Amino acid sequence: MERLPGFRDFYPEPLPHADTWSADARQFIFDKWRETAKRYNFREYDGPPLEPLELFTTKSGEEIVGQLYNFTDKGERAVSLRPEMTPTLARMVAAHERNYKKPIKWFALPQLFRYERQQKGRLREHFQFNTDIIGESDPAADAELIALLIDTLRAFGLTEQDFVIRLSSRNAWQDFYDSRTPNPDGVAESEVEGEAEGDYQFFQIIDKLERTSPEESEKKLSALGFSLADVNQFIESGQPTAELENILQNLTARGLGSFVKIDYRVIRGLAYYTGVVFEAFDAKGEFRAIAGGGRYDNLVKLISGGKVNLPALGFGMGDVVLLEILKARGLLPKFDANVDVFVLIEDETLRAPSLKLIQELRAAGFAVEYPLTPAKPDKQFKRAQELKAAFTAKVESESYVRIRNLKSRDEIVAGFADAANHLR
Amino acid sequence: MERLPGFRDFYPEPLPHADTWSADARQFIFDKWRETAKRYNFREYDGPPLEPLELFTTKSGEEIVGQLYNFTDKGERAVSLRPEMTPTLARMVAAHERNYKKPIKWFALPQLFRYERQQKGRLREHFQFNTDIIGESDPAADAELIALLIDTLRAFGLTEQDFVIRLSSRNAWQDFYDSRTPNPDGVAESEVEGEAEGDYQFFQIIDKLERTSPEESEKKLSALGFSLADVNQFIESGQPTAELENILQNLTARGLGSFVKIDYRVIRGLAYYTGVVFEAFDAKGEFRAIAGGGRYDNLVKLISGGKVNLPALGFGMGDVVLLEILKARGLLPKFDANVDVFVLIEDETLRAPSLKLIQELRAAGFAVEYPLTPAKPDKQFKRAQELKAAFTAKVESESYVRIRNLKSRDEIVAGFADAANHLR
Repeated sequence: MERLPGFRDFYPEPLPHADTWSADARQFIFDKWRETAKRYNFREYDGPPLEPLELFTTKSGEEIVGQLYNFTDKGERAVSLRPEMTPTLARMVAAHERNYKKPIKWFALPQLFRYERQQKGRLREHFQFNTDIIGESDPAADAELIALLIDTLRAFGLTEQDFVIRLSSRNAWQDFYDSRTPNPDGVAESEVEGEAEGDYQFFQIIDKLERTSPEESEKKLSALGFSLADVNQFIESGQPTAELENILQNLTARGLGSFVKIDYRVIRGLAYYTGVVFEAFDAKGEFRAIAGGGRYDNLVKLISGGKVNLPALGFGMGDVVLLEILKARGLLPKFDANVDVFVLIEDETLRAPSLKLIQELRAAGFAVEYPLTPAKPDKQFKRAQELKAAFTAKVESESYVRIRNLKSRDEIVAGFADAANHLR
Repeated sequence: MERLPGFRDFYPEPLPHADTWSADARQFIFDKWRETAKRYNFREYDGPPLEPLELFTTKSGEEIVGQLYNFTDKGERAVSLRPEMTPTLARMVAAHERNYKKPIKWFALPQLFRYERQQKGRLREHFQFNTDIIGESDPAADAELIALLIDTLRAFGLTEQDFVIRLSSRNAWQDFYDSRTPNPDGVAESEVEGEAEGDYQFFQIIDKLERTSPEESEKKLSALGFSLADVNQFIESGQPTAELENILQNLTARGLGSFVKIDYRVIRGLAYYTGVVFEAFDAKGEFRAIAGGGRYDNLVKLISGGKVNLPALGFGMGDVVLLEILKARGLLPKFDANVDVFVLIEDETLRAPSLKLIQELRAAGFAVEYPLTPAKPDKQFKRAQELKAAFTAKVESESYVRIRNLKSRDEIVAGFADAANHLR
């Protein structure tokens, strides 16, 4: 029986196949994500992997449904596996925001799902480090979040030779748009609340600039009354807005300025971003984006039906691209069982005191393995070596234990009660 | 907008409501589960939360579908959110068992789902500590797994005054059944492979004994040719079989004998158990079972379509009952932000060197918080106290930092580069 296409099994290492996924590497990544979030005083939360479909269509419009893993449940509810975490976060914050001092700094490690018919062979789930700051409109919050993003990647051993944060701003493009449009308020409102259709279309063209031919872009831009040359000149100027300058100075004060560059080509397709946007890329441009995020000051209000209005920003970092980069850069450690002590049972009449020793060592916090059933001494020792045990321990009588350091090959005979002290 | 009925949001503490769920308590439980599994050299794995429906019906028959969170996906596949982990484990092991030395000792922390129409208000998801040993038929494996169960509960501070492992055996009941049935091989085979219909029905009656009136049980038993008096006498004898005796001696050698008692009323309803079965209960019997498990020697063969045949056993421990008991026994710690240092910024001209200090302390591994925007000194200090920060640190010039221990109230002025050394 096979698992569903697009889903992953996670095995302990060493892996059976090069194309299977490592549960150890996943946990390594999760640990680093949690560790870094904690240093920045971000608190963990989580929501259900299944939500009412409406939560996602409210945010992204009906067109999102084509990419969702959605269905009708047995209670006739339209539901969906979560494709992203932000709507759940907005829902949770809106429900209980008065309980928390602002700014709220939270993170989650959700598994996210999508179902795109056309892209067979692609993954339909991934895990994401999802971090958000809610309730602070000052660019200091943007800087704090980008610093967290940088330090998360550095926690894996990546350096400024390995990655870059491309920093941009919807506001910069909005100013560009407004200053060149005779009557910006005259255009029709789109279905996406708070987003004018004209600038929305314009943002979409900018978003696709890197993947579209200049002729095609020029054609689309001039239909809206813009020119590609003008757009390109703005991008090449790379002149930070006052807001972006503020963020750059903040990051420079932290010693992180060299990780960031202004790049107005980044605008991020999602309609709900409202201000600063950014993406993390590998420096050589060999991989897809490692992470992306920005401000979404209107979303909490939208999700709460107008009841709660809080500025917000966040980023998401998936496990798949990150893992590819760590592999390519040789930054993934070798994982093994991490056995501290392998207890050899060569004399079956000593199995009972051996079990007592095993229990005592485990109670003292050691990871202990032993032969469950009678086995030849050489086979036991080989197993201890395979497991990369740091020590072997062998009960020699009811009172004594022979302990061997498998690296230094030092041996010592210790009293039973004293054994644990020789294993540090 | 509301979350779906039966699903939980997990918030950081302090919680907004007594009836909301704590992300911190969840992580506390997950950490203890992982920690204990590691001491026993169990390795972590995981599979997809969504599986082909067939995986679950193959194991449990079509009648399981009524309890599943199942649906048809956009590719017209019959799929289900996983109601348990064992079929996924059996599938994964069957696919790659040759890569792993036996016995395989694995664990997972899956979120599991069920959809029961009739039980509104009940949770439709929970998390489970799922541990299994695969490839060892000796009772030594059963003892190792039960020891892990006991030590997992002890890791939370629960003692033999708090819980008991009720140990039983399908084999004991099979012997009871066979010895009283004239022609045990003559009965028709049920649809559940490897399970004769007569004994399956008998096991079901035993399983429900505690929840059924004696009259009703007597009626059902005599229909199969048994008497309730005979059954009760067998239960009350509590005489361990040779296999159970072996397990008890093993656990006694570890000093864990007092946590276990023979209790033949435990038989576990699931059809696929084949030998030893057990459940963990709170000693006062106030809560539902904390954990349950046993041997399922035929399942890997069944799931692999006969390709792989490996004996196996496992247990599952859910997060919900465990959390109730830990709360009731006062064994849940208070969770807070665990901030190490709150950096006070009272002079905004020193914000840049303050950001430098914050960055250096975080790089040294400390959890650091600070006011993102200008704030009054007393408000900052109050926030540091609310966050239960261990220290405050205040940049006094480009070269000096004033560090205050909030518990001892000791103050010290340190050089910038030396600040981290005063925070241990």
